[in-house]
Amino acid sequence: MSEKHGKAVDLSHHLSDMAKARLPSPLKSLGKYMNKPGLISLAGGMPHPDYFPFADISANALAQNSYSVDESRRSSSLSWIWNIFGSKQKTIPITVPKYPTSPDQINLAVALQYGQASGLAQLQVFIKHFVSQVYSPAFSDWTTLIHTGNTDGLLRAFFTLLNPGEVFLTEEWTYPSATAATKPIGCKAVPVAMDGQGMRSDDLKKVLSEWDEQARGAKRPRVMYTVPIGQNPSGATMSLSRKQEIYDICVQYGKCHPTDKSVLYDLGTHMTLADVIILEDDPYYFLQLKEYHLPSERSAPSASKHDGAAFIASLEPSYLNIDVQGRVIRLDTFSKTIAPGSRLGFFTCNPLFAERLERAGETSTQAPCGFGQSLIAQLLTTWGYDGYVRWLHGLAVEYEVRRDYLLDSLSEEFHMRKGLGPAGVWEGLEVLEAHAKPTASEKFGYGSKYFSIVPPTSGMFLWVKLHFDDIPNFQPGDEESLEMQAWTKLAEAGVLVAPGWFFAADGVNPPEPGAGHFRIAFSNADFATFKTAVTTLGQVLREIHGQ
Amino acid sequence: MSEKHGKAVDLSHHLSDMAKARLPSPLKSLGKYMNKPGLISLAGGMPHPDYFPFADISANALAQNSYSVDESRRSSSLSWIWNIFGSKQKTIPITVPKYPTSPDQINLAVALQYGQASGLAQLQVFIKHFVSQVYSPAFSDWTTLIHTGNTDGLLRAFFTLLNPGEVFLTEEWTYPSATAATKPIGCKAVPVAMDGQGMRSDDLKKVLSEWDEQARGAKRPRVMYTVPIGQNPSGATMSLSRKQEIYDICVQYGKCHPTDKSVLYDLGTHMTLADVIILEDDPYYFLQLKEYHLPSERSAPSASKHDGAAFIASLEPSYLNIDVQGRVIRLDTFSKTIAPGSRLGFFTCNPLFAERLERAGETSTQAPCGFGQSLIAQLLTTWGYDGYVRWLHGLAVEYEVRRDYLLDSLSEEFHMRKGLGPAGVWEGLEVLEAHAKPTASEKFGYGSKYFSIVPPTSGMFLWVKLHFDDIPNFQPGDEESLEMQAWTKLAEAGVLVAPGWFFAADGVNPPEPGAGHFRIAFSNADFATFKTAVTTLGQVLREIHGQ
Repeated sequence: MSEKHGKAVDLSHHLSDMAKARLPSPLKSLGKYMNKPGLISLAGGMPHPDYFPFADISANALAQNSYSVDESRRSSSLSWIWNIFGSKQKTIPITVPKYPTSPDQINLAVALQYGQASGLAQLQVFIKHFVSQVYSPAFSDWTTLIHTGNTDGLLRAFFTLLNPGEVFLTEEWTYPSATAATKPIGCKAVPVAMDGQGMRSDDLKKVLSEWDEQARGAKRPRVMYTVPIGQNPSGATMSLSRKQEIYDICVQYGKCHPTDKSVLYDLGTHMTLADVIILEDDPYYFLQLKEYHLPSERSAPSASKHDGAAFIASLEPSYLNIDVQGRVIRLDTFSKTIAPGSRLGFFTCNPLFAERLERAGETSTQAPCGFGQSLIAQLLTTWGYDGYVRWLHGLAVEYEVRRDYLLDSLSEEFHMRKGLGPAGVWEGLEVLEAHAKPTASEKFGYGSKYFSIVPPTSGMFLWVKLHFDDIPNFQPGDEESLEMQAWTKLAEAGVLVAPGWFFAADGVNPPEPGAGHFRIAFSNADFATFKTAVTTLGQVLREIHGQ
Repeated sequence: MSEKHGKAVDLSHHLSDMAKARLPSPLKSLGKYMNKPGLISLAGGMPHPDYFPFADISANALAQNSYSVDESRRSSSLSWIWNIFGSKQKTIPITVPKYPTSPDQINLAVALQYGQASGLAQLQVFIKHFVSQVYSPAFSDWTTLIHTGNTDGLLRAFFTLLNPGEVFLTEEWTYPSATAATKPIGCKAVPVAMDGQGMRSDDLKKVLSEWDEQARGAKRPRVMYTVPIGQNPSGATMSLSRKQEIYDICVQYGKCHPTDKSVLYDLGTHMTLADVIILEDDPYYFLQLKEYHLPSERSAPSASKHDGAAFIASLEPSYLNIDVQGRVIRLDTFSKTIAPGSRLGFFTCNPLFAERLERAGETSTQAPCGFGQSLIAQLLTTWGYDGYVRWLHGLAVEYEVRRDYLLDSLSEEFHMRKGLGPAGVWEGLEVLEAHAKPTASEKFGYGSKYFSIVPPTSGMFLWVKLHFDDIPNFQPGDEESLEMQAWTKLAEAGVLVAPGWFFAADGVNPPEPGAGHFRIAFSNADFATFKTAVTTLGQVLREIHGQ
């Protein structure tokens, strides 16, 4: 594609009034002198690093190959031999001295000093190289900028693009903090229908092309918030071809800016051809999992070895990979790959947005915590790019095992059969339906249908569609109250899951006759706990179904 | 005072529209079940801590008594024997294990997991006790809440109180990030005149009582931003009696809320009696320094020992100490006492504001970085309260030595004489005037007056008032361009200071005929560098004065 390495188009008309009003720090005006050799700076209020009460910080870090990627270690049945807990792992000692001997070393005196909102140089270098290798953005002048985790990054991105009262596009089920973040400035989510891949491109086109400003009470949205991999809560994985369809629509539809000659403009339709900005929030990107098969249909996995390039190539590409115009702001975080307490992540986007996002950081979080930055930078540079990819591969296999264990436990507790998805999100998809196990007298039939799932192929969550149709005295309209009844019974019985209503993009559950939802995380519990939780779920569902 | 331990008054009418619109996290609705013993939670998307690639983190921390508090070690003249650099300090090893053996220990698995925006329990306990001991708030239901440094804290506080377009009170010279933070929502600073103690109470009263909504284009301000100790840039220290005057005015003047019976209401004036909220940004609180004396007038300091209670008692109290109504939001940071890269600090305020400030954290930074939180909590609990106070005392003496060294160097380079402050900020105060050293032929006279200073008694900065009257061909109105000329010459000569215009509260330098300003930090450079910088300053000023 000839555009493939062109520069980002001018998207400055997308900046919010807040973003436009941000001042550069007055210190920027000193820039010309800042890097002068031998300069004496008495300008900033910086404590002397001797007064930082740490001579060094260090850690025993896990080795990059702490988690096996060999799938043949895994049984084809429920006789799980995998032991992911309590295994003795190899550790590597890492240290960040306050005053290292070489200028290239990560330096605690620098990490703990006031710094640029753009973060430690060594971390910047690692991230830039990582993005280039893994995502290979389709425009040439992309840049990266550190933030203090995707929640911070997302708020900065929203405030950089949205004016008060504007609306933004998102999946009909979405991450609740995204909608909570924009509520204070009166911005609301416009839900787009979903299927097994997440956001549907046909519904996106419909929403945009049929937008009625009067009826909707807002201008046509020009910002999209999306979680394309391990979609939260549905666990959907979006293919590159779906991303391309959505990207093309985002280029095509948008607000009219006839006076702005810098954006592509279709003289036929009198519409700008470049106008929905995509916020790609992708915390689960490296948790892409192989397809799940029921134990009865599973063949013994063959021995597998780590191959970094093959692992990266196996991942569905990011929107960055098709973003020829620079209209994607991608948010990466170390929360799921290192630890949530890292409070560290990064944007990849065009330089115009990056500059405004950096200004927003200067008057809020400043640079992320120097303890975290320096330990993570030391870990990543010790592992190296290849080592970090090895670590990510190990994690992905771990999450696959966890998903499989939970699903296998469900298939022990319930009678699982394949079916076609009911009307709605999973219409026409192959789903697994959990039925009551038949009693002795009805050995050849099926009991009540309790719930359906589509085994997720990414992320941390199992999205459970509860079926209420078979419940005695069920009436249409009871769905929300039955969801909460089921949720409460389960909580009273000692198992907490997330109820579906948490995730409704605009605060109202998308209508699905006879259905409710639970989101179950398979990321954290140990195996015995999963077993107990599944047994309890069985008891509660039998009780609800009057059995 | 009978009110002394009453509860905070209802200040809910101060919440901004943004603050009011903030949603509690839906997870809060699970609260009832969260602490149930034996509960299985599959609700949150939390990675298993085995996947955090750190088995432990540790540090060699400095001992609490690393810096001497014995002032007798210091010479009365310029023959400085103090060696603050490169001394061999005693270190204490501290470690935070991922899986500690006791539940009371600081736990890396918890610190690196998703956590409440309120932070690690052990840190909360330390901070609460510290505030109670050091500041002793005058209302009973105060609370503390962690934030990621005062810049983050301040932005959250502004957004919690200010609606777009509102104005807020501050010192006529102030911290530029405070004004930059509010610019995106169209809020501006209203400068209040200063004197040697910082904000003047008489001018505050004048500004509020003569407020003309029409002429000012904004409602009377009901938020004040102030740096009362080590005021940035002036280095002023505000006494308790001045704080009491200002506090009383903040109670007296404000917007009229006649329908709100919960606030004190004066039937005579038809004005509410409770209505300016004070944001006390106090990063330099523990850097309160003894008075400076010229070397010629200095007596040999007597031997001094650390006495924690006496050190704390020697500090000018916080606004919290007189805040009987709970109208102060105090911002503390570890940036100046541990390290800027800590990105950690805390609010002390009434529970109503604290709750909204916590919500604001949940959709932005979440909890501060777990690496930083756990290492700092481990350091503070290892030192203990008394140990941290000892550390703070050592720091204060260090900054005193630094200030003295810089001032002594100036008194070597220039001819320093005492004088009365010129019209403006220092009117009537005893100031030190730096003159050209007399040449041989004018031995008994004084050369041009270059600049004046009031030796700061807190903070990190020397605020230098440059005098341009004696410059050949000086014309009134040249002040700003001469300030920049002098600044540029100094920068070209290799010394960077902060020019006065950075700090003008409303973007326009407060008028001071014949004067310009530099802010010089004495916090960071080593002694030899100070010497070089002062010599260079002498050369540049002589050149500007045509000598």
